[in-house]
Amino acid sequence: MNAPHAPFARATLRPLPAAMLEALRARFGERCSTTSAVREQHGRDESTYPVTPPDAVVFCESTGDVAALVALAAAHAVPVIAFGIGSSLEGHLLAVQGGVSIDLSRMNAIVAVNAEDLTVTVQAGVTREQLNREIKDTGLFFPIDPGANATLGGMAATRASGTNAVRYGTMKENVLGLTVVTAAGEIIRTGTRARKSSAGYDLTRLFVGSEGTLGVMTEITLKLYPLPEAVSAAICHFPSIDAAVRTTIQVIQIGVPIARCELLDANAIRGVNRHSQLSLRESPMLLMEFHGSPAGVQEQAQTVQDIAREVGGESFEWTSTPEERTRLWTARHQAYFAALQMRPGCRSLSTDTCVPISKLAENINQSVIEAEAAGLPYWIIGHVGDGNFHLSYLLDPNDPVETATAERLSGQMVHRAIRLGGTCTGEHGIGLHKIGYLLEETGAGAVEQMRLIKRALDPKNIMNPGKIFSM
Amino acid sequence: MNAPHAPFARATLRPLPAAMLEALRARFGERCSTTSAVREQHGRDESTYPVTPPDAVVFCESTGDVAALVALAAAHAVPVIAFGIGSSLEGHLLAVQGGVSIDLSRMNAIVAVNAEDLTVTVQAGVTREQLNREIKDTGLFFPIDPGANATLGGMAATRASGTNAVRYGTMKENVLGLTVVTAAGEIIRTGTRARKSSAGYDLTRLFVGSEGTLGVMTEITLKLYPLPEAVSAAICHFPSIDAAVRTTIQVIQIGVPIARCELLDANAIRGVNRHSQLSLRESPMLLMEFHGSPAGVQEQAQTVQDIAREVGGESFEWTSTPEERTRLWTARHQAYFAALQMRPGCRSLSTDTCVPISKLAENINQSVIEAEAAGLPYWIIGHVGDGNFHLSYLLDPNDPVETATAERLSGQMVHRAIRLGGTCTGEHGIGLHKIGYLLEETGAGAVEQMRLIKRALDPKNIMNPGKIFSM
Repeated sequence: MNAPHAPFARATLRPLPAAMLEALRARFGERCSTTSAVREQHGRDESTYPVTPPDAVVFCESTGDVAALVALAAAHAVPVIAFGIGSSLEGHLLAVQGGVSIDLSRMNAIVAVNAEDLTVTVQAGVTREQLNREIKDTGLFFPIDPGANATLGGMAATRASGTNAVRYGTMKENVLGLTVVTAAGEIIRTGTRARKSSAGYDLTRLFVGSEGTLGVMTEITLKLYPLPEAVSAAICHFPSIDAAVRTTIQVIQIGVPIARCELLDANAIRGVNRHSQLSLRESPMLLMEFHGSPAGVQEQAQTVQDIAREVGGESFEWTSTPEERTRLWTARHQAYFAALQMRPGCRSLSTDTCVPISKLAENINQSVIEAEAAGLPYWIIGHVGDGNFHLSYLLDPNDPVETATAERLSGQMVHRAIRLGGTCTGEHGIGLHKIGYLLEETGAGAVEQMRLIKRALDPKNIMNPGKIFSM
Repeated sequence: MNAPHAPFARATLRPLPAAMLEALRARFGERCSTTSAVREQHGRDESTYPVTPPDAVVFCESTGDVAALVALAAAHAVPVIAFGIGSSLEGHLLAVQGGVSIDLSRMNAIVAVNAEDLTVTVQAGVTREQLNREIKDTGLFFPIDPGANATLGGMAATRASGTNAVRYGTMKENVLGLTVVTAAGEIIRTGTRARKSSAGYDLTRLFVGSEGTLGVMTEITLKLYPLPEAVSAAICHFPSIDAAVRTTIQVIQIGVPIARCELLDANAIRGVNRHSQLSLRESPMLLMEFHGSPAGVQEQAQTVQDIAREVGGESFEWTSTPEERTRLWTARHQAYFAALQMRPGCRSLSTDTCVPISKLAENINQSVIEAEAAGLPYWIIGHVGDGNFHLSYLLDPNDPVETATAERLSGQMVHRAIRLGGTCTGEHGIGLHKIGYLLEETGAGAVEQMRLIKRALDPKNIMNPGKIFSM
């Protein structure tokens, strides 16, 4: 069931020395677990890979805990894998070489809210929904929304983005600084709370997106934004995916500062309708949101409406109340689980290509043709304002032919995206699954620069080994 | 005349082997120069350091040229220093260990304009003014504007920002991808033309801001933006710097998407008035610009005007014509040369601290008190929307006491900025001058991670050695 591009062999397993386990138990007591239930829970994510558990799980409660754990791991050359909430999609969390899972979910404190500076510092185990709940009274919010209620540590590690990225950027743009435990078990700080800096190498951006392979992020300083004075959401149905995408392309090209611009295909809407008791028309739809002043929001929406109408967009509908807006976005956020329910017992293989905006129609249209021809059940959602979309196949995990077909189609999509000047992954990361695609995308020379960095910062290859590239 | 934090000794000079010079002449002919005029022109920047020329200068005309040159340098373990236009401020270009200057000014072609994707790819020697001139007909523009008409390669190398960064971000946010010649003389590509990606380590962001110490950027893919439908500029005078800064802080905190928000103190205005034949009132002033729809621009400006009035902002004046706006911004861009003319024969030592926005008033006010007490001529401009400002001393280069005083005050400013949660450099970089400050700001552990990366990617220490940190 492995992806064709990322075979992994338990042959490379590095056993956990008894002395290490003893030291872990001495340091962490009950917080070090080796029960199979806990280990199995930490050896999986939302990918289609089989569960690949670590040898032990340690529940850390402070940066000091993590530093002590990594120092021990370094001394014994044992792999460590940072674990937030398990919502990654490319096999990031699988203990392919064994080792210890560092569970950060108890590190869920908001360390400091600096509302007057529009910054917040959180521990890595804080989830995005928790963050927005806890800062609600400040009048500020954190916009990055990958769909899942992921931890901010996990989101930073995969350079996540999601529905608001078209306006507010990705984790790359919104992390100001980090506390990191290095592969030697030392604690460093990167960045500052200033909004920009030219002070040396951008270690912050190096750790963001490194998928736990260079160090463990334990605290994260983020940008916040004032809650917009006015928020308005709208849905618009289109006669075809192509028409929806062409509308999006024009909106981006003329520079409308749209906050969210999500595509759902008819299949996705079918799932959402059933799961969330909605009765949306089951034709391609854009779900949009506008942020700004009341007049600004109206102006943006009018512009988009005019564009949509030109390409056959029908029934531009406004959500008139916050409740209705929340209901729509909640449905959108549950689209993943809604889709899974369309085929009981299935697993979802999600693609994640991202291309320059002018190539988006070609990329999506061709992908749909291929999916239809293959006859596998699939659904599409897309952060189309970024040129990013997810065509996900719903697979019978017991049917190797389905998986092989989906992987073949996924590969075709990646080759096309790269040919169109884009990337194999807009926001999910490489993990195990896209190791070969990274090489195809960026070339052996660039991957070799990554390997040199990895070897320099993690000479014993203990930080989430086997991910991003083979060593 | 060296800065106290960055002594350098020509004792570390690595002589240029005769065989290397011969190989350079064979490969580059007349494009390899060892005349002292050319060497001296390439051994300086806008810092107060004495000229420190390279042993040779090679005028490269292609990425292949650069790769051939660096391969030769690697074979002979000779330093190479990428050179754009010489407008850096912290000694970045000085050949402190000798070696070869790579002049990229002839690599000034626009490689590809992809207007429909809002991207452009340029050679590293293209200047920002040239870029905006050449893409004018597309209806797009590149906003990053550090003041000087720097090359885009130099701007990327120092993670530059400037007047538009408050709205459009810095080079960090606006570089999508790079062609880089590595320290081994190999050519790699980083990033893609997609607007986001989670594909492996963020090599793009690692090279951006690395000041030529990890590789030579030869081509740069940048984001472009639609020219705003409406642009409006305004100036507002204030009874004190404090009042101007407090206005700025409020504007940022409530989220007005102001495009430019520049502070000029009375000294700066005096220089500008004299140099550009203007008659601006010589009291602290904000020079602002608003981008958007006609209604949006008016709304933003009204909000700012209301805030300014509350803290004593007087005579909010609109520039009614594009000509007037251009005249004001041209004056602002010439502020540096205007200031130098205030004290004939002087050199300018410019500080560059950047702090969280709520600390900006404290940071500026205290700096002014210290400057006034010291009695040295100074002037202030600030990209205050980012929390960044430049207090620059006008120094008699023949008076070591003045330099020592200015360096002492500059050090006090840096200590304060770091204490306030900020950085020693918002946009100028570390170069030679701030090596000690980087260590103070980020700590020995983080600098050691940078050193490990440097050693891994440039094992012979040939890429602009002696900059950012000591090895």
